[in-house]
Order: sequence, then structure tokens, then C-alpha cells
Amino acid sequence: MNEHNLSMLADFYQFSMAHGYFRNDLSNKIVYFDMFFRKVPDNGGYVITAGLKQLIDFITNLRFEEEDLDLLRHKGITDEKFLDYLRHFHFHGDIYAMPEGTVAFPYEPIVTVRAPIIDAQLIETMLLLTLNHQSLIATKASRIVQAAQGRAVMEFGARRAQGADAAIYGARAAYIAGAVGTSTVLAEKMFGIPSLGTMAHSWVQLANSEYEAFSAYANQYPENCVLLVDTYDTLLSGVPNAIKVFKEVLLPKGYRPKGIRLDSGDLAYLSKAARTMLDEAGFEDCKIIASNGLNETVILSLIQQDAKIDVFGVGENLITSMSSPVFGGVYKLAGIEEGQAIIPKIKISNDIAKITNPSFKKTIRFYDRTSQKALADLIMLKEEQIDGNKPYTIFHPQYPWKTKVLNNFTTRELQVPVFINGIQVYTPPELNKIRRYAAAELASLPEEVCRLINPHIHIVDLSQKLWDLKMELLNAAKTA
Amino acid sequence: MNEHNLSMLADFYQFSMAHGYFRNDLSNKIVYFDMFFRKVPDNGGYVITAGLKQLIDFITNLRFEEEDLDLLRHKGITDEKFLDYLRHFHFHGDIYAMPEGTVAFPYEPIVTVRAPIIDAQLIETMLLLTLNHQSLIATKASRIVQAAQGRAVMEFGARRAQGADAAIYGARAAYIAGAVGTSTVLAEKMFGIPSLGTMAHSWVQLANSEYEAFSAYANQYPENCVLLVDTYDTLLSGVPNAIKVFKEVLLPKGYRPKGIRLDSGDLAYLSKAARTMLDEAGFEDCKIIASNGLNETVILSLIQQDAKIDVFGVGENLITSMSSPVFGGVYKLAGIEEGQAIIPKIKISNDIAKITNPSFKKTIRFYDRTSQKALADLIMLKEEQIDGNKPYTIFHPQYPWKTKVLNNFTTRELQVPVFINGIQVYTPPELNKIRRYAAAELASLPEEVCRLINPHIHIVDLSQKLWDLKMELLNAAKTA
Repeated sequence: MNEHNLSMLADFYQFSMAHGYFRNDLSNKIVYFDMFFRKVPDNGGYVITAGLKQLIDFITNLRFEEEDLDLLRHKGITDEKFLDYLRHFHFHGDIYAMPEGTVAFPYEPIVTVRAPIIDAQLIETMLLLTLNHQSLIATKASRIVQAAQGRAVMEFGARRAQGADAAIYGARAAYIAGAVGTSTVLAEKMFGIPSLGTMAHSWVQLANSEYEAFSAYANQYPENCVLLVDTYDTLLSGVPNAIKVFKEVLLPKGYRPKGIRLDSGDLAYLSKAARTMLDEAGFEDCKIIASNGLNETVILSLIQQDAKIDVFGVGENLITSMSSPVFGGVYKLAGIEEGQAIIPKIKISNDIAKITNPSFKKTIRFYDRTSQKALADLIMLKEEQIDGNKPYTIFHPQYPWKTKVLNNFTTRELQVPVFINGIQVYTPPELNKIRRYAAAELASLPEEVCRLINPHIHIVDLSQKLWDLKMELLNAAKTA
Repeated sequence: MNEHNLSMLADFYQFSMAHGYFRNDLSNKIVYFDMFFRKVPDNGGYVITAGLKQLIDFITNLRFEEEDLDLLRHKGITDEKFLDYLRHFHFHGDIYAMPEGTVAFPYEPIVTVRAPIIDAQLIETMLLLTLNHQSLIATKASRIVQAAQGRAVMEFGARRAQGADAAIYGARAAYIAGAVGTSTVLAEKMFGIPSLGTMAHSWVQLANSEYEAFSAYANQYPENCVLLVDTYDTLLSGVPNAIKVFKEVLLPKGYRPKGIRLDSGDLAYLSKAARTMLDEAGFEDCKIIASNGLNETVILSLIQQDAKIDVFGVGENLITSMSSPVFGGVYKLAGIEEGQAIIPKIKISNDIAKITNPSFKKTIRFYDRTSQKALADLIMLKEEQIDGNKPYTIFHPQYPWKTKVLNNFTTRELQVPVFINGIQVYTPPELNKIRRYAAAELASLPEEVCRLINPHIHIVDLSQKLWDLKMELLNAAKTA
């Protein structure tokens, strides 16, 4: 059993600050935090968000046990009133979030938390960790699935994953983004993701001959026979032996072969040669599965070379997002409540990219009413409304003279309420529904935004009110 | 609770093959597998191995439950005799492994499994995942600790980790390799690693002023007061306010400040200026902690610029090993037993680097008797012995004319028995002991091997007997 209460998976400062807020009678101070990111991994054009289900589970189960309190006491947080507060703690704030599978762009709040300051602080690390990890892998998997242009992508990475959770939740994120399955059985057990696999090289090495290894496998799994053909020599031995076994073992039993798998060598050359051999033997329906160091760039190149590959098995490049292994989501204070009013907060930085957007916000996406394609996104104050019957002019938040008039549009708010007053008000859809939603999200983007290299940057503007508020706060800070 | 039985964290092929071996009456066939790697992350000179404790835990707890058997049945493995075999399964093989913290080099078996084929196959994915992940992070952390040249390194990465396990076990691996602590409280709860932290920017933003934020913190934690000074303007506001609070709050209470923390901006410039300000105010003992995008390269550069930083907080670059996020450990068949004899097995590949070393092996390290420094490693057959009283000539496995005569040496075998016949015969040391051992391991290496860029390649040769056996098998494969 891999069993640990994750409530203490928090940065220590969350407890030192929570303690401080408690002692300064700020336990009930309502604050707003946004979780957002600034840069798309791999310099891509979009992010597929994932991980909300696990965040909900974490928040629902967030409890501190006596041994947790003992540890805090040992670390100098000895105020028994505060420890008792933690003993009875459960999250009682509001959370708004983009449903999993939503396409997101830089600076858009994926998750917004409105909660008492202690509640907002205690969930920070796990909120970031969960959303960052799964959004990273979903985004990477989406790139790889796109590169495969309709061919199947399988997630094969568990052995190179950064820990067990990375394997399990990475398989989940990859499936959301369009992978057809995983090699990891536990991902099927936990989430119902199809797990697949046949044999390792050791199966072939252990038999007296490659032919015997294939024959034993075909006898055992005639209905689902995929043979690994590269243990000795793919074209001189592997494919001929596979064809022989297909003919001598499978056909007499009334079965057709499912596939052969290439795991080394020149996949473009070998797949074309193997395809010809299989076709000439009458096995046009036998699929070719390829693996070994695949990523979106290699897959694009293989397809461009007309490689005859039906299924791509992708390992370490997917499960670690190897070329861009960090999703830089951050969690920033946006406001506090004083009575009924929201006092907006901004984080100033010399680095313009690090200045935050203040106050309680929402993000809406404009769609062309005719093509149904996404036109632009707008981050605005929560209470603002758009009149869908009038043209709407948006402008670039850093170059405000760059404007665009939107006509004939529909709009959609991207976040949904997930918790209200600590009560869960949103039920995560089952995984296949999330997967279909992610596919629809991607289909709603212009092709140019989905491009893997140098994508068009989707417009994300600020409403006039939000922009004015931001400028006001920046100016106030300057004169302070 | 993050609770899942990891026994099913396995590639599906492990079950399809296990089923096949069972039906072909091979359940008791004894095989040898080696786990080794071919390339050091970041093109470094050495690897620090880690993760053995968690592998032992996994193997000890490996059990299949009825719901696991149901899943396998559902997936076409319907042989009730085999399922009953799994129902009563527990690992009953032998495992030899390098203790955690051991320095390892390419091709050296970190773990060797001698077990019935089904047992050896069912642990494959978790063995690789666990060793790969923690060895990756330990190796990266070791590079960062080396770059810091005696200054403290803190692991700060949980929020950017690839899942909860990556945060928890990554903190553990970093500590083994010399990090002094972590920001993650759960790593202290589980492993006793010191967790540290003070405040986020939100603490400062929420107060009426930076001075009030600092003052409240100093009043609450006078004995352990570290202040985050970059929320507004580090030198114009943060450091002066910190000094003011140190004088007005801490000194009257009889406490000295512990530190200030810089989390943005030009860390070299800011740390020097802040050092001067602190020194002039009489706080020479106040440490300067820096974070924000640090890795070994940045740390080396900061030190070269004479930055006045006492503690480096390292986040995403450490916890994901961002510049080299995959540890490519593999698990390869090395032999099978026929009666009392070992039939060696080799995996041939067109890629010379991918050809395996056959049979049941051990690795020994030669040390200079005088300097105690490591001279070379030798991979040899398990039964071979070295006479420490005679000179020993080693030779390069790919360029055998390159020889070296070793004199005045001692030797040490790197692996220890961990399981024999399924019984655990090795007790992992407690974590601080592992950490000290890792430090001693590193101290035993020549400086040139530890160099971060273009390190000297430590010699890892094959014994004459092993080399002869390998050549024999390669020639036999050629003529087969």
C-alpha cells in the first residue's frame, strides 16, 4: 500500500503563516488567490488543463491528525488553540476552476480560491502540484497526439516516471489529452484507462528460438496476438518468424494477427519493409506498433518519411514531458474582503511578466457564431457582463492601441464553481467524458494556435475595467 | 489519504508474460536480471543511487487482491490456476543491490535479481521506477550541492514536482545527496528531513505595511526570524524594514535574526548590497537565503561573482532534474539456470552501447591503499576473486589494448544481499546514515570525476573472464 495522508504535503511556511494569521485574529479574513501560468511548455500555443479531480479529492480529505499536530508542536508551533483549530479544520471556502480538459492560455486563472486566509494558504502546495503536474503531461500528450495525425498514441512511460504518482496520474493526463491507452495496469484499475502490452525481449530470449517464443505466445493469446520482432534481426528473423507463426498458428485457429512491434533501429525504414512483407503475406490488417525514443518531433519526421506505423508507443518523452518538464503554475493573492467590498491586490515586479492581475476575476472565451471557432479570450472582473448582441472591442493589455472588434460571437465563461462555502457543488465528469471534452476544446481552436512550432498566439486581453484597475494600482504603488 | 496498492503498478506485459510462463511450466525457472544505466544525467561523471528502501517496501508488500485478479480476468487472463497462483504470490527470489548513496557508473548493475521468472518479471516496473526516480534526483542534488561549495542547499520544489510522490521521494533523494532540508513538511513527517520555511509574499501583501508584516512575524517567531525582503523593493524597502524590525523587535527580546530571503531580481548584486547593509547594522550573523530559478550553473556563477549567499533554495530545477529529467535505468536478462549451471544471456543490438553484459556478476571498486581514493571499477563474474596482494591489470572493454596496472589497492564489492529466497536480509540504514555514506562515497572520488562539466570518466572495466564470455556469446550469435 502506498498510503500517506497528503494533508501535510505543504510548504512549512503555510503553517507558520497560518499560525500567524490565527494569532492576529485573521482566521476569518476572506482572500482571493488565482492559480495561473505565464508560459506554455515547449513554447506551444495552448495548455490542456488537468488535475482538478485530484485537487477536489485532496480538499475533501484535508484533515490534520494528532501526529501532524505533534510534528508542528515539535517545530515550534506550540499554540494549543491554533493546533485545536487545525484539529477541527476542514476547508470552507469557494473554489472556481476550469473543468479538466479545458484549453487555457497564459495569465488566465485556472483556479480561483475565495476563502478564509488560512484555508487558502493550506491548500497552496497541493493545488499547484496537482494542477501543474497533470496539466504539464496533458499538454505534452496533446502535442504528441497531434503529431501522430490520427494514428494511435500509447503511453508507455511508467518505468521512467518521476515516482509512482507521476506514472499513475501521468497516464490519466495523457489519456485526457487523447492517448488511447497506457502500459500501466494500475491506471486501468484506478481510472479505467485501457492498459495494453504483450511481451518483453526477455520472453523471446528465454525461449529456445524466436519462432518458439512467437508460437507459444500465439497459442496462448490467439485473439490478441502482437509480436515483438526486434530481439535478433527485425527483417531477417523477426518479421519472417512472425509471419510464419501467423500462418501456422493463428490462421488454423481462425484468428488474424493484431500487430507486430518495432522497438529499435530505423523505424521509418523497418516499418516500410515490414509493411511490405506483411502485405505480401496477406496480413494487410496487421498493425505496426513502434516505440523507442519517440516524441512529437520524431513522430512528425517519421510520418513525413511515410513510415508505415499505426501505433506510436511513447515513454519517457511523454511521462516526464522531457523537453519541457516544468509547468510553472503560480498561486497569487488577488484581493481581500473588507466587509462587502473587495480590496484588490497586485504583486509588483521589475519583470513586467510577473505583475499580477488584481481582484476577483473571470475569463470568457469568444466564439465565432458561424464557425464555432474560438476568437479570443477576455479576463475581466467577476461582475462584468458582455452584451452578446453588440460588437465588442478588445485591446492588448501591454499594447493597448492594438484593438480588435468582435462581431457575431457567442461567449462562454471558462471557470465553474467547484466548492461554495466548503461544499462541493461540482461533480467531475467520468474520464471518457473529460477526454471527449478536451478533444472538442482542441477542435474549437484555429489550426494556427495548435501548430506545434511557432504557433499563433491566441489573444487574451483584459477588460477595460480590469485594465483601469490594474493601472490605478500600479500608479498608486509608484507614488506610495 | 493517498492510498493505493502499488502491486498493479506494472506494465501489462508483465502479467501476459507471467501467465505464459505459468502455462508453459516455467514458474520455477530461475533467471538473472540486472538493473543498470548507460548514461549519467547532465553528462556528469557519477550517479548517486537512491530508492532501494522504497523498492524493499514494495517487494515486501507485493500482494494481489481479488479486485486485481478480477481486472486480469476481465483483460483475458482467465486461467484460474494462474490467478490462484497470483492470489498466493509473494516474492521469493534473491536481490543484490548497491546500498543507497553508493556512487555508480554506467553499466554497473545497481540491482541484480536472481529469481523465478515470474517473480523477476512482476517487480520490473516498480524496480525501475523507484531506482530511476530517486537516483535521478539524488544525482542532480549532488551536482547542486557541489556547486554550492559548502554553502547550504535547501530543496524547495514540491509545487513543481511531477506528482506527490515526486515531491516526497524527491525531497528524500535530495537529502541523501547533501541538501540540508526541504520546504515540504510531509518529508519531515515521513523521513525526518528538516523542513523549513517562513513566509510567502502574500504575508507581506496582506499586512498594512511591510514593516508591520515583518514586525508581526518577528513577534511571533523571535527565535527563528527569517524575513522575505523582495515583495516591494529589496534595497529601498525590504532590507531597511528588516533591519528596523531586527533592532526594534528582536534585540529587545534578546534574539538575533536568523536571515533574510531574496526571491527575485539580480541575486549577486542584491546579496552583496544587502550584506553590506546588514553588516553595517551589526547583523553580520544574519544569513542571506536566495531562491528563484537556481540550478548548479547559476549557483556557480553567483559564487564566481562573489555573491553573498549563505543558503540556496532550489526548486523546479532540482525536483524535476529539469535539464536532464530522465534516468535511463534498464532491466535486462543476464542468464538462466539449468540445474546448477548458469546459462548466460546477452542482448545483441546494432547499437554497441545497448549490448548487455552476460551472466551473474558483481562490481568491485579498487581504492588506492594510501590515498583511499577510488582508482577504477571492475565488473566481473560473481565467483571471481581478486588477490589483493598482487598487481592487477585491467583493460578497457571496448579498446582492450588500453590497460592499466593497479598496485597497492584495496577492493570493495558494491552490491550487498538484500533478499535471499524472498527473505529480507538487509536493513536499510536510517536516512542520516545514508546521507553520511553518500558524502563519504563522493569524497572517495578523484576531484576530476566530480567535475560538473566535462568530468574525467571513471574507469569501469570488465574482467578477462567476463570479457571472454561476452565475446564468445557475440561470436556464437553471429554464426547462429
